[in-house]
Amino acid sequence: MADSDLPTRPKPEETPAAGAPAAPAEGDSKSASKNAAKKAAKEKAKAEKAAARAAQEKAQAAAQEANDTAKHLYGQLPETEDVNPTTRFSDFTEEEKEVTVVARVDNARVQSAKLAFLMLRQQGQKIQAVIAAAEPISRQMIKYTGGLNVNSIVQVTGLIKKPEIPISSATIQNLEIHIRKVYMISEAAQMLPMQVKDAERPPPVETTDDAPQVDSEGAPIVTLKTRLDNRVLDLQTETSQAITWISSGVAQLFSEYMIKSGSRWIFTPKLVGAATEGGSNVFEVKYFKRNGYLAQSPQLYKQMCIAGDMENVFEIAPVFRAEDSNTHRHLTEFAGLDFEKTFEHHYHEVLEFAEDLLVFILSQLKERYAAQIATIQKSYPKAGDFKLPKNGKALRLNYMDGVALLKEAGVDMSEQERFENDFTTAMEKQLGQIIRDKYDTDFYVLDKFPMAVRPFYTKADPKDARFSNSYDFFMRGEEIMSGAQRINNIEELEASMRSKGLDPTQEGFEDYLNAFRQGCPPHAGGGLGLNRIVMFFLGLPNVRLASLFPRDPQRLRP
Amino acid sequence: MADSDLPTRPKPEETPAAGAPAAPAEGDSKSASKNAAKKAAKEKAKAEKAAARAAQEKAQAAAQEANDTAKHLYGQLPETEDVNPTTRFSDFTEEEKEVTVVARVDNARVQSAKLAFLMLRQQGQKIQAVIAAAEPISRQMIKYTGGLNVNSIVQVTGLIKKPEIPISSATIQNLEIHIRKVYMISEAAQMLPMQVKDAERPPPVETTDDAPQVDSEGAPIVTLKTRLDNRVLDLQTETSQAITWISSGVAQLFSEYMIKSGSRWIFTPKLVGAATEGGSNVFEVKYFKRNGYLAQSPQLYKQMCIAGDMENVFEIAPVFRAEDSNTHRHLTEFAGLDFEKTFEHHYHEVLEFAEDLLVFILSQLKERYAAQIATIQKSYPKAGDFKLPKNGKALRLNYMDGVALLKEAGVDMSEQERFENDFTTAMEKQLGQIIRDKYDTDFYVLDKFPMAVRPFYTKADPKDARFSNSYDFFMRGEEIMSGAQRINNIEELEASMRSKGLDPTQEGFEDYLNAFRQGCPPHAGGGLGLNRIVMFFLGLPNVRLASLFPRDPQRLRP
Repeated sequence: MADSDLPTRPKPEETPAAGAPAAPAEGDSKSASKNAAKKAAKEKAKAEKAAARAAQEKAQAAAQEANDTAKHLYGQLPETEDVNPTTRFSDFTEEEKEVTVVARVDNARVQSAKLAFLMLRQQGQKIQAVIAAAEPISRQMIKYTGGLNVNSIVQVTGLIKKPEIPISSATIQNLEIHIRKVYMISEAAQMLPMQVKDAERPPPVETTDDAPQVDSEGAPIVTLKTRLDNRVLDLQTETSQAITWISSGVAQLFSEYMIKSGSRWIFTPKLVGAATEGGSNVFEVKYFKRNGYLAQSPQLYKQMCIAGDMENVFEIAPVFRAEDSNTHRHLTEFAGLDFEKTFEHHYHEVLEFAEDLLVFILSQLKERYAAQIATIQKSYPKAGDFKLPKNGKALRLNYMDGVALLKEAGVDMSEQERFENDFTTAMEKQLGQIIRDKYDTDFYVLDKFPMAVRPFYTKADPKDARFSNSYDFFMRGEEIMSGAQRINNIEELEASMRSKGLDPTQEGFEDYLNAFRQGCPPHAGGGLGLNRIVMFFLGLPNVRLASLFPRDPQRLRP
Repeated sequence: MADSDLPTRPKPEETPAAGAPAAPAEGDSKSASKNAAKKAAKEKAKAEKAAARAAQEKAQAAAQEANDTAKHLYGQLPETEDVNPTTRFSDFTEEEKEVTVVARVDNARVQSAKLAFLMLRQQGQKIQAVIAAAEPISRQMIKYTGGLNVNSIVQVTGLIKKPEIPISSATIQNLEIHIRKVYMISEAAQMLPMQVKDAERPPPVETTDDAPQVDSEGAPIVTLKTRLDNRVLDLQTETSQAITWISSGVAQLFSEYMIKSGSRWIFTPKLVGAATEGGSNVFEVKYFKRNGYLAQSPQLYKQMCIAGDMENVFEIAPVFRAEDSNTHRHLTEFAGLDFEKTFEHHYHEVLEFAEDLLVFILSQLKERYAAQIATIQKSYPKAGDFKLPKNGKALRLNYMDGVALLKEAGVDMSEQERFENDFTTAMEKQLGQIIRDKYDTDFYVLDKFPMAVRPFYTKADPKDARFSNSYDFFMRGEEIMSGAQRINNIEELEASMRSKGLDPTQEGFEDYLNAFRQGCPPHAGGGLGLNRIVMFFLGLPNVRLASLFPRDPQRLRP
């Protein structure tokens, strides 16, 4: 059990490869190596200049250090420093005691030669730290502390005390740290593309080129674009920290529910041989010497698992949509939560299972993430007001009930619109408001959609073929899930394909259709968009705020 | 709460779209529509022929039915049939009582005009069912039952009884079902590309064109290729059912451990703007008007989450490798289990966390999936013999300890090989055997790999820059995880990139490198391959057996 226990705090001077020969660059050529030589010479000159500057700074520092009573109490973490466990802000108590914390510098300022302040930040939580000149703390140490680059990560040791007056700009207002030591763990650059504290305020809903750069109090306005371009900084805000916890929670609660139901976790391929689910919205991939595609959903594969006797399956995986939609709620890649399940007598067994799933996820989010929701509410006031049905069961209406509710409110659809179209987004939102007012819930289900608007694998309503055994789930009037009973009879499936203009003999459908030729039990299922659940649950204005590194037609970075 | 409760058992005659106009095909053209017309005429003729045949069969059937005392006890499920809950084989007891089951026909045979047998199958479990002529059961019903197409799904009602002698060909040998009713739920075609019962025997390890088609007992040999081509049938075997449960278990146990540790579940993008992790093994994607790539790992994004103050994150997502490797252990797409975590004082904090993770997963697999492991063992004898360290802690050696163990066994590496190469696959396997013999474990960790063989973001060992703070995890002498402390200092990171022949100013690195310019805490992590864990844990001969729908350079279907 060999083990060389070394301190591993980052030390820039330990650059491992200094002097090591650079590996040859790929695709080397004469002109490339000439350019490389030029570049190397330039870099060498630059390095020499930097070295000279560093030597000068070192000499000055050494002179100062000679008189510095605190020289071991700040700066680079000494190897000899005791490695006491660090404490988290959230574990602080009012007891006056010494703690060591690792935190970001949210702000640093020198008040006088004898006094400086830091605002320290841990995952959005802020506490004030103060340093005052008194043996052994020197003026040099105060200057160093007050001059720390914002966003640097430091290790601070100090005494927790109650401040004379609460620190209104901190999250923890009734405590502060009296600094005894402060060491650099990771230094941030002097200039940052945006300040985390400015990103704490919500972005403007719309931004135009002539939009104001500062708000009414003179604070910089950080647009959504700037935030997303600098997403790593944006993730450090209290709001982003809380939103990413909610995202994590949705995935966790989904898997919890599915596993408890005896479901099997599956991983179906995202690289597929044919664009079987609608040709235009699929990403094409160069797959060795031929073309492949990115799966637009695990639909066909989930069903093949059911045909493979797996009975109850779920998947959590990225879904890819090459849709050129530049809206507040479309992404080209998002986290899909999918399930598929056999039933005994009626597809409503699965529908009820799915309704209970959503009620479980949404109610548990409220219960387990109350603190995060409260944080998000400070920026997005709707975050806390999501209404769930009081009786713990989902509200289920038929599509035609929705049509009737809209009609009552003055929105009439023609006979053709009812059966061949679906609600528009505006109608859906209006219906969401009507249902909220009438039934006091932001989550509800519409069943029995017109067959004409559903995909080929959807089972028609056996009593009225204009409708289908399919359902959509809504949150605040916006769709978060689509699902249905699936056709499990091969002749019926092929006929349905033909009626939708699809050719069952087309390449790519073979394996899927064979699954039904070999016998397949009745089943139903659905697919949820994780990011939309987060967005609508919290009432966020944009789905990009509910994605770690969002992808849309314009954005492929960071 | 409108709800039209309809029986939804599949009924071919309920084809929803019969007579509905076909939607226009995409990319319509004159010649295409001419072809379509020809095709339609041909199909019409075919349909008419089929209709005539069906009418004839119907008339014959009607005549027979007139004399059939059992006509309501078999065939199409009547709408009036009581919908009693069905029972699973695994819930059967020795009590003599009537049950209703839904199951596959594994085999059907008519013994005589008065007696027929079914072998019924549920997720690989088999039970015999018998039907004998006795009021009200008719000869027609016996003929129907004994003539059922293999693999069809039927609903059988009958009496559970103890057979006179145990049924050796069944899984449940001490019970059988005496059939009273048998209805078709989903009919399989008469000819299947392979029989599920033939796929129950493990595939031959190597297949050549002149390999025998039948085994020594005359039973068909089903090759791995045939199984994978017909994966839906192959999934129905008892062995596949058990393996897919183990896969599900690995994902579940990984997430369980991570969530318990306070880790946040993340979803990082698979569509990325640049091939930052080695250009040649990356899949290219057409992303609207430019090129994108498929992420080869979440490495850079996990680290950006850490830089974003998320502290402890995990991801479960597909990993894409455009590697033209046609081996028993390479896939072009596999399920990746990734984690990344900050530490306080030493990267061994994270290493120990990861070691405990693997010990947890592997020991819990043994505990929770004992039944599945026993099933798999029937086909793959190694499935049950995976050795875990007795003391519940992982065995950790240094890379150089491995070099020494191999040397003892006569495998000497030159000085250059030690520091610039890594073990070959053959050496790794040999080392696995040596360690099994010496330490009695199939799971172990090697720490401190040479820096030369690790990626640019790996932290060098501060005491000896020939080595690095990196580790690999092994099962049965094959790598399942690679991980390391990551460089978190920007200057050190850029120097490391240059020493590996990478240009930090190259497009695509910008966002990643900025994360370190803005301050980043010390961290370490790792990435596991789920399919390899399943493969090596169970001692399967091929990773494709541990993937639902495997992808390799030759295979993009089903």
